[in-house]
Amino acid sequence: MRNKGEHSSCELPETTGKKTRNQNRHYRFQDNFRWKGVRIQEYKSEGQDWSGIARQAFIGAGRETTKFHLRYFEIEPDGYSSFEKHKHEHVVIGIRGKGRARVNRRNIDLNFMDVLYIKPDEPHRLYNPYHEPFGFFCLVNAKRDRPKPIKE
Amino acid sequence: MRNKGEHSSCELPETTGKKTRNQNRHYRFQDNFRWKGVRIQEYKSEGQDWSGIARQAFIGAGRETTKFHLRYFEIEPDGYSSFEKHKHEHVVIGIRGKGRARVNRRNIDLNFMDVLYIKPDEPHRLYNPYHEPFGFFCLVNAKRDRPKPIKE
Repeated sequence: MRNKGEHSSCELPETTGKKTRNQNRHYRFQDNFRWKGVRIQEYKSEGQDWSGIARQAFIGAGRETTKFHLRYFEIEPDGYSSFEKHKHEHVVIGIRGKGRARVNRRNIDLNFMDVLYIKPDEPHRLYNPYHEPFGFFCLVNAKRDRPKPIKE
Repeated sequence: MRNKGEHSSCELPETTGKKTRNQNRHYRFQDNFRWKGVRIQEYKSEGQDWSGIARQAFIGAGRETTKFHLRYFEIEPDGYSSFEKHKHEHVVIGIRGKGRARVNRRNIDLNFMDVLYIKPDEPHRLYNPYHEPFGFFCLVNAKRDRPKPIKE
């Protein structure tokens, strides 16, 4: 996912001189909610049920063996994610601007540092009805099932 | 870890009327880096190799089945965590003030939204040499080995 040049910029040098495959990493926060060494990707490569979302993946694309992945998503004003469900759970943490989550039939405001847990098989969508970018961390299990789109 | 009364304050009501054990949850961020429905605990109940740390646990103390736990730790000025190592990995995200991580022989500045990945079996400690509280999220696998203290 990340090329070697980008990746190496934030690896901490080994102090032992011994080469290992898995390195400590420090992703420094930069202006405009970017992190040094993390590239911006599309939210998904497929589907037409989403709009205006970018993804940055920190943990899960490298050599780490965590049982979870950490990603940052940013939704433009008027953008939205797929309305979908899956067995795996989401933990969402609002960190930029504000936005909303539709969880089943409820619409929940998400502000700075709010933490939202979405249980298994719950239809959900994140969206941004406001005028500034809405950015959030999203945590998921590393091994997870494929989302099922929901048509209304 | 959390009693029922505290827990229920942030559970989202079911829209189906069906009782389930695992509920969606919304922990609203409040003043002074507290979250509605999350109680403040000690960092550890044992040991004397740490000082001035409080913990708030969001994910991992309830009925969720995530393979990871999400906790917020806050270190007072001059406080520090145990110097220790373990097979499980850490992902640390700085969110309040600034602090430092000692990772093996290196000392790393952690500022707002910096993301730090600490690989398995790496000796580490988080500490706060500054004059304001240092707060960070810490992500770990749900199933994890017990830390081993390191004496210097």
